[in-house]
Amino acid sequence: MAQKPLDMGYDVNINYELNDRALFSVEEAIDIADELKIDVHELINGARVLDFGVKARGGLDAGIMLGSICMSNLGDVFISHREIGDITCPHVNVSSDHPVAACLLSQYAGWSINVDQYFAMGSGPMRAAAVVEPLFDKLKFREKANTVVGVLESHQLPTEKVARFIAEKTNVEPDDVVLAVAPASSLAGSIQVVARSVETAMHQLLELGFDLDHIESAVGTAPLPPIAADPLTGIGWTNDAILYGARVNLWVSCEDTVLEEIGPKVPANSSEKFGQPFMMLFEEAGRDFYKLDPSLFSPAVVTFHNLSTGKTFQFGEVRPDILKQSFGW
Amino acid sequence: MAQKPLDMGYDVNINYELNDRALFSVEEAIDIADELKIDVHELINGARVLDFGVKARGGLDAGIMLGSICMSNLGDVFISHREIGDITCPHVNVSSDHPVAACLLSQYAGWSINVDQYFAMGSGPMRAAAVVEPLFDKLKFREKANTVVGVLESHQLPTEKVARFIAEKTNVEPDDVVLAVAPASSLAGSIQVVARSVETAMHQLLELGFDLDHIESAVGTAPLPPIAADPLTGIGWTNDAILYGARVNLWVSCEDTVLEEIGPKVPANSSEKFGQPFMMLFEEAGRDFYKLDPSLFSPAVVTFHNLSTGKTFQFGEVRPDILKQSFGW
Amino acid sequence: MAQKPLDMGYDVNINYELNDRALFSVEEAIDIADELKIDVHELINGARVLDFGVKARGGLDAGIMLGSICMSNLGDVFISHREIGDITCPHVNVSSDHPVAACLLSQYAGWSINVDQYFAMGSGPMRAAAVVEPLFDKLKFREKANTVVGVLESHQLPTEKVARFIAEKTNVEPDDVVLAVAPASSLAGSIQVVARSVETAMHQLLELGFDLDHIESAVGTAPLPPIAADPLTGIGWTNDAILYGARVNLWVSCEDTVLEEIGPKVPANSSEKFGQPFMMLFEEAGRDFYKLDPSLFSPAVVTFHNLSTGKTFQFGEVRPDILKQSFGW
Repeated sequence: MAQKPLDMGYDVNINYELNDRALFSVEEAIDIADELKIDVHELINGARVLDFGVKARGGLDAGIMLGSICMSNLGDVFISHREIGDITCPHVNVSSDHPVAACLLSQYAGWSINVDQYFAMGSGPMRAAAVVEPLFDKLKFREKANTVVGVLESHQLPTEKVARFIAEKTNVEPDDVVLAVAPASSLAGSIQVVARSVETAMHQLLELGFDLDHIESAVGTAPLPPIAADPLTGIGWTNDAILYGARVNLWVSCEDTVLEEIGPKVPANSSEKFGQPFMMLFEEAGRDFYKLDPSLFSPAVVTFHNLSTGKTFQFGEVRPDILKQSFGW
Repeated sequence: MAQKPLDMGYDVNINYELNDRALFSVEEAIDIADELKIDVHELINGARVLDFGVKARGGLDAGIMLGSICMSNLGDVFISHREIGDITCPHVNVSSDHPVAACLLSQYAGWSINVDQYFAMGSGPMRAAAVVEPLFDKLKFREKANTVVGVLESHQLPTEKVARFIAEKTNVEPDDVVLAVAPASSLAGSIQVVARSVETAMHQLLELGFDLDHIESAVGTAPLPPIAADPLTGIGWTNDAILYGARVNLWVSCEDTVLEEIGPKVPANSSEKFGQPFMMLFEEAGRDFYKLDPSLFSPAVVTFHNLSTGKTFQFGEVRPDILKQSFGW
Repeated sequence: MAQKPLDMGYDVNINYELNDRALFSVEEAIDIADELKIDVHELINGARVLDFGVKARGGLDAGIMLGSICMSNLGDVFISHREIGDITCPHVNVSSDHPVAACLLSQYAGWSINVDQYFAMGSGPMRAAAVVEPLFDKLKFREKANTVVGVLESHQLPTEKVARFIAEKTNVEPDDVVLAVAPASSLAGSIQVVARSVETAMHQLLELGFDLDHIESAVGTAPLPPIAADPLTGIGWTNDAILYGARVNLWVSCEDTVLEEIGPKVPANSSEKFGQPFMMLFEEAGRDFYKLDPSLFSPAVVTFHNLSTGKTFQFGEVRPDILKQSFGW
């Protein structure tokens, strides 16, 4: 048999309509807001704010729904049971047959929202309408949306001014903006962040110049850390869950030599800083995210299944010892 | 950051309508009765009886559905694959963001139904309409229902007289009573009981005076034992699955000192009788449930994640050796 | 308590309408063809061909859907996370409360389709309308279908002539034929094959003369191998995933002596050829499937839970060493 062709593109056949897909999940969330323990607010300018964990209580299902919204409904999130050593530790699992659209065009938290005193890491498909990030040039993607859906990792609810800023950047009216918000120190917010195992691998591969058209499908699993009492600790723990605990499988089509060369650079242990809890590295960097080694932000283990050759390549290592140190277990 | 407030109440925002929620699952079960291998009977007085495992064959999906009905559709049940030692042993997983409503107001088998020769452990949301248990006074909950839904753990199908008794106690007409029945010695009945991992932890916490408003979300997993040939052995094995095999995670908001004090009293090994199969303890107690140490009825391991402080506390131990002894493995 | 009766028959209460049930999943697949990354073709004679992995890209969800279609929507397929040694390896899980209908009357790949140059292993409920296999005589089952649904394991798309051949054999018109196709060397095709863990056990039990009416429910799990670059290697790896990696649980009602006698003959290690990767055995047999020991085609481990006696019987062994050797890990 001939080898399978390499020219399968992620965007050939599908009009993704990312924001519309996310909106579908948003409407579902609003319908069962009580069950999800989320709050739905309408701002004076008509923008809708879904509070998944700032003042609202949120929960497990809220976290799963937030993860789904963040991936434009093109990825599945579910929780399973495992242990880290002796500690019973639910794991957050994610899968997608559209990892570029779900994870990079939607889920990647690449848009810093700074409006007056308000700060949030912005993710979700609103980014594809704003296209303020170089990522969208690289991936040649831009979406004209009627309604935009964003996910904000923040411990504050967005103001009207924040919604108007996002409306302007995404070329919609403020009443066509939907923002789902939770901090990493809420249950739903933690689940949403830990559901980024595949996304971090995808982003490393983008940075390393891997041809993303050759990534067909992906699954990932990562431990759900304890829920921190403050946002900063929450950011540290959810990052550690990925860096030291996440395992990702990618099905790709390429030459084996490409995987041999790029593969070792993907997992978190490709960083010189690998081996210490995130918060220690963050303090060392003077609490400046931009001084952190970007190659750290990756799963502990990445396993490639090459559809073109049948070969499996695995890189990286899980470090339960560091997870326990970080989580105080 | 300030610590998160402790005053989140489980019943503040939601009109649970427990019986209506359970009825939703009942109607679904009736629609796919053939697939679930359950039998649907209408008694002469109009009460509906759903046989999940008395004469009907039931199955895995019937057990999942019965677990869902029993929790008023406020909890999810699914089956996963694990091993106990070398024996492949499916596990029954449960999760809920409304553990008080799902587990205590609905699922707890707190209502003994004795009518003439008929005996059943009564659970499900009909209890919230009957309010014959002190638990409802403690939790200050009472529901006026149009139709009541109950789950009966019994090896007999309920008679018209049983249905009329329940109608009277719940203030409805007999034709507004739905009773789903299965013994612990049926496949569906075993799944339904083993889906009580979280419920047993919740009930211990209630008994220990823990403020249940501070429990946000819960997940649990427990091994599915072999299905016994007789109800009594079934009760023994399903109890052992919880006491020696269940692992529960609870997300709570409280002072750490409360968890340090109450936590060790929650898991099954807080009982002096911990360490022997349930049936041996039952024989020792002269086959009298009420002489058994109530602190036994709890999961093997309970892990608390304190949302207020970020600390994790784990208590208890799984005992695969006792599971193997009990199950004859 | 008396023992439970043995006369529970799998076909007593249900009009299975297998092809109609499968068609329900087919229509769903067509609706979300873009998401599943499958291609839908209509041949000139009106037959519909769903390409899940020949030229189409398919994916994880396509594989799950293909597995569901193949079992006439009477079984559930889902993917979970495990490791084989250090390698992260998603597992394909399957469960059914109707294992005879789902696995033998539908999923078993018992119909070799040879039309001119076209070859495929035929499975799915079209077989129950064609009844060209002795299996249907043994099981006394035959279905008159309006539309037939078949699954073809092949690296070629079926031609009009293939569709007409199937139409004739199943007594429908060509435009009432739906064929879903994928090779074992595609992601969806591999998932579909590895979802056969329960089916292989059921088929061994049929061959061994076990009364299939006494099998109530079943679950199985097997590792998803790497996706091969060519169909033959794909067949080898997916077989190894079952023979050396699958674990199946069956809930049955019979005498214990029957299980003691028949049980050891069920798992793959009952074959003298057990212990070598499938491709080595295939080469040894001169690449002739019909010279292979049929008792090989079975799960690594089969666990029986006897509903009549409460006893558990487990036979067989998983062999991660052979999986690693086979998969090149």
